Amino acid sequence: MDPHSPAYIDLRSDTKTKPTQEMLQAMMTAELGDDMNGEDPTVNRLEAMICDMLGKEAAVFACSGTQSNQMGLRSHCLPGDELLIHELGHIAMFEGGGPAILSGVSCRTLTGEKGMLNLDTLRGKIRADDQHLCRTRLLCVENTTNAGGGHYYPLDQLNEICDWAHENGLKTHMDGARIFNATVAAGYSIKDVCAPLDTISICFSKGLGCPMGSILAGSKEEIAKARRSRKVFGGALRQAGIVAAACVYALENNIERLQQDHDNARFLAEQLAPIEGITTNPTETETNLVFFDIHPELGNAVQLSKALHEVGVGIGAMGHTRLRACTHLDISREQIEQVPGAVRDVLKAGLDRYQGIATGPYARG
Amino acid sequence: MDPHSPAYIDLRSDTKTKPTQEMLQAMMTAELGDDMNGEDPTVNRLEAMICDMLGKEAAVFACSGTQSNQMGLRSHCLPGDELLIHELGHIAMFEGGGPAILSGVSCRTLTGEKGMLNLDTLRGKIRADDQHLCRTRLLCVENTTNAGGGHYYPLDQLNEICDWAHENGLKTHMDGARIFNATVAAGYSIKDVCAPLDTISICFSKGLGCPMGSILAGSKEEIAKARRSRKVFGGALRQAGIVAAACVYALENNIERLQQDHDNARFLAEQLAPIEGITTNPTETETNLVFFDIHPELGNAVQLSKALHEVGVGIGAMGHTRLRACTHLDISREQIEQVPGAVRDVLKAGLDRYQGIATGPYARG
Amino acid sequence: MDPHSPAYIDLRSDTKTKPTQEMLQAMMTAELGDDMNGEDPTVNRLEAMICDMLGKEAAVFACSGTQSNQMGLRSHCLPGDELLIHELGHIAMFEGGGPAILSGVSCRTLTGEKGMLNLDTLRGKIRADDQHLCRTRLLCVENTTNAGGGHYYPLDQLNEICDWAHENGLKTHMDGARIFNATVAAGYSIKDVCAPLDTISICFSKGLGCPMGSILAGSKEEIAKARRSRKVFGGALRQAGIVAAACVYALENNIERLQQDHDNARFLAEQLAPIEGITTNPTETETNLVFFDIHPELGNAVQLSKALHEVGVGIGAMGHTRLRACTHLDISREQIEQVPGAVRDVLKAGLDRYQGIATGPYARG
Amino acid sequence: MDPHSPAYIDLRSDTKTKPTQEMLQAMMTAELGDDMNGEDPTVNRLEAMICDMLGKEAAVFACSGTQSNQMGLRSHCLPGDELLIHELGHIAMFEGGGPAILSGVSCRTLTGEKGMLNLDTLRGKIRADDQHLCRTRLLCVENTTNAGGGHYYPLDQLNEICDWAHENGLKTHMDGARIFNATVAAGYSIKDVCAPLDTISICFSKGLGCPMGSILAGSKEEIAKARRSRKVFGGALRQAGIVAAACVYALENNIERLQQDHDNARFLAEQLAPIEGITTNPTETETNLVFFDIHPELGNAVQLSKALHEVGVGIGAMGHTRLRACTHLDISREQIEQVPGAVRDVLKAGLDRYQGIATGPYARG
Repeated sequence: MDPHSPAYIDLRSDTKTKPTQEMLQAMMTAELGDDMNGEDPTVNRLEAMICDMLGKEAAVFACSGTQSNQMGLRSHCLPGDELLIHELGHIAMFEGGGPAILSGVSCRTLTGEKGMLNLDTLRGKIRADDQHLCRTRLLCVENTTNAGGGHYYPLDQLNEICDWAHENGLKTHMDGARIFNATVAAGYSIKDVCAPLDTISICFSKGLGCPMGSILAGSKEEIAKARRSRKVFGGALRQAGIVAAACVYALENNIERLQQDHDNARFLAEQLAPIEGITTNPTETETNLVFFDIHPELGNAVQLSKALHEVGVGIGAMGHTRLRACTHLDISREQIEQVPGAVRDVLKAGLDRYQGIATGPYARG
Repeated sequence: MDPHSPAYIDLRSDTKTKPTQEMLQAMMTAELGDDMNGEDPTVNRLEAMICDMLGKEAAVFACSGTQSNQMGLRSHCLPGDELLIHELGHIAMFEGGGPAILSGVSCRTLTGEKGMLNLDTLRGKIRADDQHLCRTRLLCVENTTNAGGGHYYPLDQLNEICDWAHENGLKTHMDGARIFNATVAAGYSIKDVCAPLDTISICFSKGLGCPMGSILAGSKEEIAKARRSRKVFGGALRQAGIVAAACVYALENNIERLQQDHDNARFLAEQLAPIEGITTNPTETETNLVFFDIHPELGNAVQLSKALHEVGVGIGAMGHTRLRACTHLDISREQIEQVPGAVRDVLKAGLDRYQGIATGPYARG
Repeated sequence: MDPHSPAYIDLRSDTKTKPTQEMLQAMMTAELGDDMNGEDPTVNRLEAMICDMLGKEAAVFACSGTQSNQMGLRSHCLPGDELLIHELGHIAMFEGGGPAILSGVSCRTLTGEKGMLNLDTLRGKIRADDQHLCRTRLLCVENTTNAGGGHYYPLDQLNEICDWAHENGLKTHMDGARIFNATVAAGYSIKDVCAPLDTISICFSKGLGCPMGSILAGSKEEIAKARRSRKVFGGALRQAGIVAAACVYALENNIERLQQDHDNARFLAEQLAPIEGITTNPTETETNLVFFDIHPELGNAVQLSKALHEVGVGIGAMGHTRLRACTHLDISREQIEQVPGAVRDVLKAGLDRYQGIATGPYARG
Repeated sequence: MDPHSPAYIDLRSDTKTKPTQEMLQAMMTAELGDDMNGEDPTVNRLEAMICDMLGKEAAVFACSGTQSNQMGLRSHCLPGDELLIHELGHIAMFEGGGPAILSGVSCRTLTGEKGMLNLDTLRGKIRADDQHLCRTRLLCVENTTNAGGGHYYPLDQLNEICDWAHENGLKTHMDGARIFNATVAAGYSIKDVCAPLDTISICFSKGLGCPMGSILAGSKEEIAKARRSRKVFGGALRQAGIVAAACVYALENNIERLQQDHDNARFLAEQLAPIEGITTNPTETETNLVFFDIHPELGNAVQLSKALHEVGVGIGAMGHTRLRACTHLDISREQIEQVPGAVRDVLKAGLDRYQGIATGPYARG
C-alpha cells in the first residue's frame, strides 16, 4: 500500500509525522530574519528556550540530528581522537561514517544491555597516552536508545558513567534525538538528565512532530565551535525561523503528549506478545519503540515487513529477525488496534512468496 | 537602526528576503513525506522540475548553497585532488575551508577580470601526473560572480573554458547561487548555460526569495554520490517538502521578476555615480549587485557601512574601500530612491566618529 | 638495567634487533640512486624480489609497517568506507587512529579466537547499501597476530574468509608484519599465503632484523596509488637503497632462522609454565611470542614488567595481567635459559614496591 | 646516458648525492637502539645537536622534508585553518596536497619576488574571525627558495614578516630544506635565522649529502604533537640511528663546504650567460641553484633537458622555458666546466627531434 494513503498505518518511524495545522500556523506567522547573521528572532527564541530548559549556556539550531551530533563531535574532538560509544549507537552506526570523514575521529564501540553503556563495560577503555594509540576524548550516550530498544538511562547510571568520564578527562555528549521520550517515560526533569552532559543534541523531527530541525546545547565555547562546523557542513540557513517556529511550538505543546505514544506502544506490545510466530516482551517497551522478533523458521524480518507493508501496516526490519514498530503523533489507538490482526493474518498467509529476500536491512555478506 | 524595522532599507544581501504570503501559502498546503526515504512528493517534484529546466539527469535538494557546492566537490574529487577556481570564488573564499576539511581537496586560485576565469588564465594550470603534485580534477565557475562584481559569464566564454576542461579530463561545476540573475540579465536559456557543466548548484534563498534551500543537479552517478554526502553533512531532512514548496513556488513565480532587481540596481548605480566621495561605474552593474568605493581619504568601507546602517540603509562592506548594495524582492524602487540621499548625507556628515574601525570586513593583519 | 647493557635480555620486542655485521656490510656496499625517481637499483631489486616471492604484480618500499598498512588502506578505501578487522588488530589498535585521520575510514572491530577472524564472526557484517551506513570495503587480517597471541592463520581459514570477502565485493589486506614467522612455523609457502590477499604489507624491522623498512605488495593499480600515498606521508626517500639493502639481505638470510626464535619461544613457555604465580599454555606459543599472565593477587603486568626490567630482563606488559616475551635474532638459547629464574626470583621478592602502578600499559579509566 | 654512469654529470638535484666513505663509516659504527621508544642514542644525539645549533627546545627526526613539513603543519593547525605561503612554496606545490589531505588545511598562495614573501604582499591577508572564512593560522617561508630561484631571506625581511605574523596571532614555520645553503651564502648564524620561527624543518638529503632524513625543531609542545603525527604517517622508525648517523656526520662535516657548491653554481651561471639561445643572470645565483631559460623559438625546457640528458648532463626542466641546474657534493669544478660546452653543442644541433614534447614538466592543459 502507498504510505501516503490515509489507510496506511505508518509505524516505520516517528520521523514520519507531518506538521499539524496548529504547527503550520505557528510556522507561517513566525517572525523571520537572516539566521546566518544571528538576526532570526524565532531561531534566537528557540535557542534561548533550550538553554533555559536544559540548563546550558548556549545552543545552536541545526538541520538534523545527524548534523548536531557531528557538530558536537567536532567541538570536542581533534583528528586522531577516539570516542566511546555503544556498538548500536546512532553516531557509530547510522551517520555514514561521519566521525571519520568529518573529524578524523575513531569510534570505539562497546557493548552493554539495552543499548546502554555502564561502568563495567567502560572501565579500562580509556587508552593510555602513547603515540601508538588514539586519544580517548569523548563518551557518547544515546538516550533513549534506538537500535538498543527504546530504553532510557536510569539517572544514576547516567551520572555514574559521566562522572567517570569527567574524572578521567573525557567530555560527554548525549545523542538526545528522543530525549523527551526519556524524560516523560521516566518522570525525570530534563535539567537533571542534561546536567552530567557537556553537549546534548535534540531532534525535533521525531516524536516532537516537526518537519525538520535539531539543536545542540552546551557551553559557549563548544557552541561557538559548533556554529563554525554548521557553516562548513552547509547547515547555516537564512530565514530558519520558519522551521524553528515548529520547534518552538513542539516544545510548548508536544512533549507531555509523548506519554500517549508510550501507552500506545506498550498496548501494542501486549497485543503482539501472544501472537504465535513472533516473540516480544512487553515490559521492555519503555517508550515509543516496540521491538519483536519473527521466528526464523517462518521467515525473516525484511519479509515480514514487506508483507505487512502490502496490507497497509508500516513496520520496519531492524535485523535478521527483528522488527521495530514506532508510535507517534500521527498514530491513534484505533490504528494500533488494527495492527495485531494484520500481523496474525500475514503470518497465517505465510511469507513464502518473499523467499528471495534473505538478509537484514542493514547487513549482508 | 534595527534591520527588522519597516523603515530599514536592507540592501546588505538578497539573502534577507522574507517569504511572501503567496509563498507561505504554497508551503502550508504542500504535500509532505519523509524525504530521507524519497517519499516527499514536493521535494520529488522540485528535483524533477530542476532536471527538466536545466537539462540534467538528476538533482538533489540541499539546505544551502554551501552544502550543495560541497556535495558537488565530493562527487567529483578525491582527497589530494585540486580544483581550479577564481580567487574571489565563493567556494574558495566563503565556505570556511570546506574543500580541505570535508574532501581533502586543495583550491588553486586564479585571477581573471570580473571574477571570471578565461582560457588565458587557465592554460597551463593543470598539473602533470606526478607524485609531488595534486591531481587537478575540477573547474569551478561562479555565475553570476559575487565578490567578482555580479557579472555573468558570456556563453562563449563559459563554453570555451568548459570545453578546455573536458578536453583535459577535468570535470566542471558551477556555483549557480545566482544563476537566474545571469540568465535573466543575459537573456540566455538556463539549459544553454548549464549544458557545459557537469554539476550545477542553485541557491533558493537569494533573489528567488525562499527562506532556505538549494539544489545540486548533474548526472545520476554524481547525484547518487551527493546524496551520501548530504546525509553525512546532516543535510538529509524529513518533511523537507515544506521548504521545497517555497522553491517550487519561486521557480514558477520569481525568476522573471529578477529583471526588476537588475533595473533597480542599475538605477541605483546611476544615482550613486555622481556622488562626490564615492566611485562606481554604472555600466558594470549587470545584475542585482552594485559595487562602489569610498575615497580612502574620507574613511573606509566598514565605516561608511556603519554610518549608513545607523540612518537605516543596509549596505555591506566587501573590502577596504569597497561596498556592495544588493537589490531584491523586498526592495522597491521607492526605497532605492532614498539611498543616494542617505549616502550623500552620511558622507557630508563625515565618518570621523568611526575612526577606530580601520580594516576590511574579511581581512586583517 | 639499561637496555643497552650487554647483560640485558631484551625480549620486549623483535623490533629491538640490531643489524649484524653481515647486514651492515650489505648496506654499506649497496648500489644507490634516487628512489623518488625510481633510480635506486637496490630498492628496485627489493621490490622485484618481493613481487617474485609473493606472486604479486607490484611492490613499493615503505619506511614502516604502519606506513605500508596505511598506504594499503588508502589504495582500497575512500572516505566513508569501513574495514572489518579483529579488535586486537594492529591497524585498529596501534596506528594512532590512522584510518580515520589519513583516509576518513572507520574500523569495524570484530572478535575471534587468537586474534583471528573467521566466517562465523564475519557473516552478516557487511553493511547494506544505504546512505545511513558506511560502505564496507575491506577485510584486514593480521598474520601472525600480535596482541592476538602470535598465531598464524590456517591456510583454509584464510582462504575461506578471503573468498567470502571477494564474493561480497570486498578487498583483502594482510598486515603481514610477521608473515615469515607464519610461513616458517606453518610450513606454508609464502605464495600460497599471499594468494588470497589483494595487498600485503611486510615489516623488515621485526624478526627479519633490519633497522627499518617495510614493503607493500599488490596489483599495479593499487601500488601506483600507494606510491602517491607514500609521498604524501613523507615516506618517499632518496638513497633508500642503503636501508633496502638490509631488507634484501634479510630476505636472503634471515627467514629460515626464524625457526630458532620459535623454538626458543616454545622452550621459554615450557619453562615458564610451571612457575607459581603466572599462567601460560606452551602449546599456544606457535611462533616467537610468548604470552603469560600474572595472578592478579600478586600484582599486575606493568609491575612485573618493571621488576623484571630492573634485574635485566625486558618483557613487556600487554594488558592488566598479561605480559609478552618476544624472541628474536639477538636472543640466544643461553639468554632464554636465564629468564625463568629471573621471573621466579622477582615474584618471590614480591611486587610491593610498585604498588602505585595499577593500570595496564595501553589502558586507563 | 644512464644517470648511474660515472661520466654522467648529474645536476638534476642535490638529492642525487650519494654518501661518502666517511659518512658510510659513521653509519656503520653508529650506536643503535629502538627510536620508537626514544632508545636510539644516535637519534637522540642528532636531535640534541639540532636543538643546540638552532636554539630550539626540542627536535624530532623524520624521514623526509615533506614529512617534517607536514608534521609542522599538524602541530600548528586544525582542520579549517589556512596558511599563508608563496605560490612557489614547496609545501603548497610539491607535497601532493598534503595540507588538505593530512590536516584539512587550506593554502593561501601569495606572490613575491624570488619566491619570498614580504610585508607588502602579506598585509591584509589574515582573514577576519567569521564563520564564512578559514582561520588564518600559520605563515610558511621557504629558505632558501627552490622554485623561487635559490634565494635566501635577508634577515631583516625574515624578522619583519615573522614579527608581523606573531603580532597578528599567527605561528611561523620555515621549510629549511636548504637552510644551510642560506646561512653559508649569507654568512648568517643559524640561530639568528631560526630565532623568529616557531618551527623549522631541515632536510639532510639535499646539499648535506645524506641518503635520507630530516628533522623538525620547535617548542616542546609542538614537537610532542609532531611525534604523534610522525607515528601516524608511518615515519616513526626503529634503529633509525643508522641513518641519523649520516646526519650527525653531515652537520659536523658538510656545512661549510656548501660554499664550494655555491661557487660552482655561480661559475656555471657565468659560463652559461653568454651562450646564445639561453638567458640567465649570474648575479641571481645566490646559492647552489642555477636557473636559465631557453629562447622559446628554439624549443622548450623539457626538450633541452632531454637533449642534455642524452649527452650526459642532467639538468631538470622547471617550467615551460625554465631549467634548473643544481650543484652539490658529488659535482666537481671539472664537471661543471664541461657543462657550458654541452649546452652549446646541444643547442647548435637543434631540438627538432623532440618536437612532440611541448609542455612543462609540472603543468599541462
